[in-house]
Amino acid sequence: MPPIVLVLNGPNLNLLGTREPATYGHETLADISALCGRAADEFGLAVEFRQTNHEGELLDWIHGARNRCAGIVINPAAWTHTSVAIRDALIASELPVIEVHLSNVHAREPFRHHSFVSAIATAVMCGFGSHGYRLALEHFSQRLLGKTA
Amino acid sequence: MPPIVLVLNGPNLNLLGTREPATYGHETLADISALCGRAADEFGLAVEFRQTNHEGELLDWIHGARNRCAGIVINPAAWTHTSVAIRDALIASELPVIEVHLSNVHAREPFRHHSFVSAIATAVMCGFGSHGYRLALEHFSQRLLGKTA
Amino acid sequence: MPPIVLVLNGPNLNLLGTREPATYGHETLADISALCGRAADEFGLAVEFRQTNHEGELLDWIHGARNRCAGIVINPAAWTHTSVAIRDALIASELPVIEVHLSNVHAREPFRHHSFVSAIATAVMCGFGSHGYRLALEHFSQRLLGKTA
Amino acid sequence: MPPIVLVLNGPNLNLLGTREPATYGHETLADISALCGRAADEFGLAVEFRQTNHEGELLDWIHGARNRCAGIVINPAAWTHTSVAIRDALIASELPVIEVHLSNVHAREPFRHHSFVSAIATAVMCGFGSHGYRLALEHFSQRLLGKTA
Amino acid sequence: MPPIVLVLNGPNLNLLGTREPATYGHETLADISALCGRAADEFGLAVEFRQTNHEGELLDWIHGARNRCAGIVINPAAWTHTSVAIRDALIASELPVIEVHLSNVHAREPFRHHSFVSAIATAVMCGFGSHGYRLALEHFSQRLLGKTA
Amino acid sequence: MPPIVLVLNGPNLNLLGTREPATYGHETLADISALCGRAADEFGLAVEFRQTNHEGELLDWIHGARNRCAGIVINPAAWTHTSVAIRDALIASELPVIEVHLSNVHAREPFRHHSFVSAIATAVMCGFGSHGYRLALEHFSQRLLGKTA
Amino acid sequence: MPPIVLVLNGPNLNLLGTREPATYGHETLADISALCGRAADEFGLAVEFRQTNHEGELLDWIHGARNRCAGIVINPAAWTHTSVAIRDALIASELPVIEVHLSNVHAREPFRHHSFVSAIATAVMCGFGSHGYRLALEHFSQRLLGKTA
Amino acid sequence: MPPIVLVLNGPNLNLLGTREPATYGHETLADISALCGRAADEFGLAVEFRQTNHEGELLDWIHGARNRCAGIVINPAAWTHTSVAIRDALIASELPVIEVHLSNVHAREPFRHHSFVSAIATAVMCGFGSHGYRLALEHFSQRLLGKTA
Amino acid sequence: MPPIVLVLNGPNLNLLGTREPATYGHETLADISALCGRAADEFGLAVEFRQTNHEGELLDWIHGARNRCAGIVINPAAWTHTSVAIRDALIASELPVIEVHLSNVHAREPFRHHSFVSAIATAVMCGFGSHGYRLALEHFSQRLLGKTA
Amino acid sequence: MPPIVLVLNGPNLNLLGTREPATYGHETLADISALCGRAADEFGLAVEFRQTNHEGELLDWIHGARNRCAGIVINPAAWTHTSVAIRDALIASELPVIEVHLSNVHAREPFRHHSFVSAIATAVMCGFGSHGYRLALEHFSQRLLGKTA
Amino acid sequence: MPPIVLVLNGPNLNLLGTREPATYGHETLADISALCGRAADEFGLAVEFRQTNHEGELLDWIHGARNRCAGIVINPAAWTHTSVAIRDALIASELPVIEVHLSNVHAREPFRHHSFVSAIATAVMCGFGSHGYRLALEHFSQRLLGKTA
Amino acid sequence: MPPIVLVLNGPNLNLLGTREPATYGHETLADISALCGRAADEFGLAVEFRQTNHEGELLDWIHGARNRCAGIVINPAAWTHTSVAIRDALIASELPVIEVHLSNVHAREPFRHHSFVSAIATAVMCGFGSHGYRLALEHFSQRLLGKTA
Repeated sequence: MPPIVLVLNGPNLNLLGTREPATYGHETLADISALCGRAADEFGLAVEFRQTNHEGELLDWIHGARNRCAGIVINPAAWTHTSVAIRDALIASELPVIEVHLSNVHAREPFRHHSFVSAIATAVMCGFGSHGYRLALEHFSQRLLGKTA
Repeated sequence: MPPIVLVLNGPNLNLLGTREPATYGHETLADISALCGRAADEFGLAVEFRQTNHEGELLDWIHGARNRCAGIVINPAAWTHTSVAIRDALIASELPVIEVHLSNVHAREPFRHHSFVSAIATAVMCGFGSHGYRLALEHFSQRLLGKTA
Repeated sequence: MPPIVLVLNGPNLNLLGTREPATYGHETLADISALCGRAADEFGLAVEFRQTNHEGELLDWIHGARNRCAGIVINPAAWTHTSVAIRDALIASELPVIEVHLSNVHAREPFRHHSFVSAIATAVMCGFGSHGYRLALEHFSQRLLGKTA
Repeated sequence: MPPIVLVLNGPNLNLLGTREPATYGHETLADISALCGRAADEFGLAVEFRQTNHEGELLDWIHGARNRCAGIVINPAAWTHTSVAIRDALIASELPVIEVHLSNVHAREPFRHHSFVSAIATAVMCGFGSHGYRLALEHFSQRLLGKTA
Repeated sequence: MPPIVLVLNGPNLNLLGTREPATYGHETLADISALCGRAADEFGLAVEFRQTNHEGELLDWIHGARNRCAGIVINPAAWTHTSVAIRDALIASELPVIEVHLSNVHAREPFRHHSFVSAIATAVMCGFGSHGYRLALEHFSQRLLGKTA
Repeated sequence: MPPIVLVLNGPNLNLLGTREPATYGHETLADISALCGRAADEFGLAVEFRQTNHEGELLDWIHGARNRCAGIVINPAAWTHTSVAIRDALIASELPVIEVHLSNVHAREPFRHHSFVSAIATAVMCGFGSHGYRLALEHFSQRLLGKTA
Repeated sequence: MPPIVLVLNGPNLNLLGTREPATYGHETLADISALCGRAADEFGLAVEFRQTNHEGELLDWIHGARNRCAGIVINPAAWTHTSVAIRDALIASELPVIEVHLSNVHAREPFRHHSFVSAIATAVMCGFGSHGYRLALEHFSQRLLGKTA
Repeated sequence: MPPIVLVLNGPNLNLLGTREPATYGHETLADISALCGRAADEFGLAVEFRQTNHEGELLDWIHGARNRCAGIVINPAAWTHTSVAIRDALIASELPVIEVHLSNVHAREPFRHHSFVSAIATAVMCGFGSHGYRLALEHFSQRLLGKTA
Repeated sequence: MPPIVLVLNGPNLNLLGTREPATYGHETLADISALCGRAADEFGLAVEFRQTNHEGELLDWIHGARNRCAGIVINPAAWTHTSVAIRDALIASELPVIEVHLSNVHAREPFRHHSFVSAIATAVMCGFGSHGYRLALEHFSQRLLGKTA
Repeated sequence: MPPIVLVLNGPNLNLLGTREPATYGHETLADISALCGRAADEFGLAVEFRQTNHEGELLDWIHGARNRCAGIVINPAAWTHTSVAIRDALIASELPVIEVHLSNVHAREPFRHHSFVSAIATAVMCGFGSHGYRLALEHFSQRLLGKTA
Repeated sequence: MPPIVLVLNGPNLNLLGTREPATYGHETLADISALCGRAADEFGLAVEFRQTNHEGELLDWIHGARNRCAGIVINPAAWTHTSVAIRDALIASELPVIEVHLSNVHAREPFRHHSFVSAIATAVMCGFGSHGYRLALEHFSQRLLGKTA
Repeated sequence: MPPIVLVLNGPNLNLLGTREPATYGHETLADISALCGRAADEFGLAVEFRQTNHEGELLDWIHGARNRCAGIVINPAAWTHTSVAIRDALIASELPVIEVHLSNVHAREPFRHHSFVSAIATAVMCGFGSHGYRLALEHFSQRLLGKTA
């Protein structure tokens, strides 16, 4: 059975494709979910793709991944900058975590430059658009399945 | 059909009238809801009045206002100072936003002086008590229906 | 005799309508003075409307309002951020004070986010354009004459 | 009937005993609940013991305690550092509040040194492990039932 | 001819005795002027006592003191914290300067703790009420006329 | 022979019962010493109870506890915020340390929020009044003598 | 008719030549006015040269320059660091502005390193003594009359 | 019997007259003690004049003044900037306190600009040299014995 | 001809494989160069791979890439945090830039959390080890050659 | 022989005319060199005009100017904000230094507002475009050759 | 008679050899005293070696060194970071001072990076272990007795 | 063969003896090189003594020391405060490092108080003049060759 990677999306990302396309592009979250599905097939992974506007739900999902999933890709969106609870839940999962942002957060408002997640993540990327999700999955494939470039 | 203004109330505001009356007065949230209803009639607006203690629910309501409502009056209460997610949802709504606080937050603790919402709001007011809700609706009336003083 | 509300305008506001219309709109200060006059009639108030580029003059006006006026509406403009003297004069007046800004100062340069006046004001509003003056007078009407919505 | 003390636990504490035992020990939250039950019996108190990962749920519980409970023991976990809403709810409850942390938060990351709750709590303790819950209940016993050492 | 000491008072001090008596006492500025007159007689000095709400006027008075007066006692009031121009004028006067505040500014708001004048003054005192003016004149007497205790 | 717990009290605590009763209560330090004696008997501990206004004396006492005592309860009072030397001495003692404050220091002036001791203490508590001393001894009993709740 | 350049001088500059010659040199403001007159003749400009210790007067002059003058040279002196009103007036003038300081302000006290004017000026210079006024006029000549080096 | 004023001097002041005369002058502490004796006679006060390099000793003296003395004049010297214990002791004395510094501390290093004592003192003065002690005693005379100027 | 991607490596990276393997792994820079060559072949790109310890040399290389290369992958190493010159050169190149770090810089010393490059980069990634270089090239392939996942 | 003025240009300035013309204009560095040559002839100076992307080379040039040149005009570009070494070299040269920036750095990113050079320069100017070089040379002419306006 | 160098050791250093040997090594203070004695013989100096946990005692020793000793070697230990009084005493001694720390304080907690002594010391060293004392004495020998290497 | 100690000198140190003799003394770098040669002979070490104004060259030298030298003495001069690259290279060398400054950097400008090197050095010294180099070599001798005092 392929290793499961949980792909988590934080608040407002359900609006992708309609919200601020100049910043976030025209793809919808369903497009990204499909993209992740194709990438998972290609890289030998299983993907569970979810979004929520409720922090408590996200915490529950992270708790449920422990001992069941092999890694977490997370785009915490606005919670990146305000949630210590997500940081704590990710630590408690004892899973490798890749933090992904669609836009280059360093080129935006100063309060978006600090992330509570980055310091406890395995790796961090931003500015790659939806392609970043694929690259993160590819990296989990290399890391989990021993495939090297 | 009159334009709809969504009036949103954040955490703990359900306690109005019982909590710290020295700061917040004796009116209940039901009183303010009735006040808004009367004002909407007078100004030619429709009002939807809601309160929640769940940030995710507030985000869902803001999402639902896009393309359906004509403006948002929001009293984010404690989330004013901590929620980037609400700021992002309000931007995504592409609606004019008036931020309202019952008390003068600038005369209270320093951590209440910063708002994540103010910088992306159309207008901000504080310290007018429940009358501020009426004034905000009056301003939407002037702005949306072309009425001038 | 109707209660007198003193409406004070700080430096450079005499240029309104010619200066940075993208930020401040096309109305002149005379337009706003007329607007306040009409609103005062409607709300049962008397209004004295003044502007100065001299801080000392503004201080003298505030001193003169004590025991004579019923409230102050003030748009301190640039002095908002730099004058402790105006703050002290307003405290000394022992009058209710409503601070008004035409634009949303929180969406402008950081040095415009701090006000020496807000902490001692009764209420604060910004971003309502000239309509804010009318809303402030309406609030004084409610507060001083017992009219409720 | 014995006075009711509400014992509240914030996000991720459901993982106790499995998460970072070097920091938090091997006890589970069920163990602590049992410990509180035994202590309550001993000290003449009734205890309601709860945990949630949903901030809104915690706010609802605090609201419900007003006029019904005699005190609150709260371990806000990660929300300690980020939630003004919980602070406001606790003030609104008009109950004595004891803030408890299992570990010595002052010996951890700097962002864990600031608490929005401490300034409005009756008392604060950290670093006592699960024994802190018992000590907090003992203190409520002394305070509420007049027992002195 | 006795040496002239210029006693200068900044904005709002004309309201003394009526404004915030809990902080500033019941004496009027005329009382303090009389007190200074009596002290000057006693100590062998001449005093010129002035107040203004116009910064420019204060600057002109300081300029006029150069080569004509023997020292300046100044209570800059609110300008203490905001005026670099007064600091520069005092330096330019090349006179010894004693900065006086009626109340203990260190026990008030933080923005009143910093003075642009103190670093270039000869001596500074606060919290002595109107008696501070007399003490300052006494010190000039000792300094200028060689009287020792 | 019962394990010895050293109970240390910092500057000004000799004034307890007379000084600022609104903050510190009416008990004297002798009362607290007696309370600790009774608690020690109850919990199977020996207590040495001391106070000093001389930092050097406190350092000497901490040095003398090494290899002789089983733990330290310390109320460093004002030195909490200023003494690195006490922190270093406590580390050098290689003993478990419980830091106790009578009042909730987080609800007082900002400079009282930082403690040089907390980061190297085993546990910290504040706001329990004199009862905190008893709770700290109870915790040492549990910790040193294997008694569980 | 030659383009008019308004040359404005802020508080205390009337003392030039007598005040702190080690910092500001021995020239008087009249000398600099004459220098500017000669330079204006040489460069084909008309100059209006003014000084005031009253901020309000300076604001009025700047207002009067709009649509009448071709540029402003301003030495705001102490107001450089404290006046948002002058910044706002200069923006409102819609004229090119050159900020000039006689001394190198970066080599003086830290509070003189920040200027409210610099960010909205066309160009800034300091440390050239009175020669800086001439260089600023020369630059306006190049800019306004198309003369190139 | 005349009211007793305790005059306290902090560390290194025993070196006065030999140490850094450019900053502190040539008078010795014995000179200042004599000056205070003469002033006390003149003003109808009794003075106890002391100096110590041991903070604990200073605390003991302050404790001993409660209910026995009528006021404290204190030059805390270097402890001004570092001792919370002295601040606490002075509060506990429940006596009026005048803080005196020989030199103008605001014109020296930045770390000498903050005082832990000022915020709880009745009045503060600096830069008057030894004459400041006399002025402080004169103020106590006015305050305690009802003598007015 | 395939588009050229310039892969630049900053100071000390020549030591890779020998230096701090716990942080940077055992691969040498030659290994990464080979990895990039293979990835370039796979993705239809040409790669130029370089390292230098001389900032000036790096600037020259970036200048030379303008109008000749299609993108830059840069690991600025220590210069990330200190070089404004590299930022300026990258802007001047008018090329898309991907910033890559082998380790998760957010989990290291605070001075490594700020990058002068991130705000002007197209995308940023860290913590992927040498695999990050391959992912960056894959992203350029998608971006430049229209390949989508 | 005319006095030699060394005109130094820092990193990336070799790209002038091609890089960000909206900020820096269309002139090339060769144009500015020619402009300086013409100005030198006119003002009776000799000019050596250089640019480098290597900090070490710039340091060597500054060292070589000592006792040989009469002044330095330097546009340190990006090194303005990061190089203490250039500051130290300029001090060591014991020459008058004029710091020049083409654009108004105060209107750009905050990190460009601080210069390590300004505090030790003789004079500073920015925002005059290439004309600033000419004005700097004119000032050296006045300073070195005694020509007055 | 050889010049006397006073070697002073601050709080907790009496525990050397027993306290935190991983940080401070196994040598006792008696070992270091002996080492200093041997070094003094070798270098032609007399040494007085002392330690205290009482700040007042240290101040008295420094006062006593004036006009009697030729230099001071001081390891202020924890007082390094908190005592302005020691700084003032050392200035008053008018002796050359070498500050010595056994460990490299810059590699420890941030609050140990600032020293009140360093800015007024002649020289500073840290991280040399007990050998640092010998090196400091050697430097005094060179400085005081004219011995050069 | 004696162990090799690399003695490295940063930018502008080639000017020693000519540059700011009040701060740095009259010795030239050649004098210090000779002094190091003599000290090396005396202590049984070999010394390689180098200076550069090019950061890249310094990095190359540090890289070359790995596995070949036994220790590094470095005076990074201005790079102390700005170069992370040198810090990284020194770590990579895996050699003991002694940081030396001729002057007491703590008594100079604040930006010279922070060193990127100190936290990763073995030991640090400043203010010993050229004698510091000799003392550093003596310490390496003790450390590397087992010689004790």
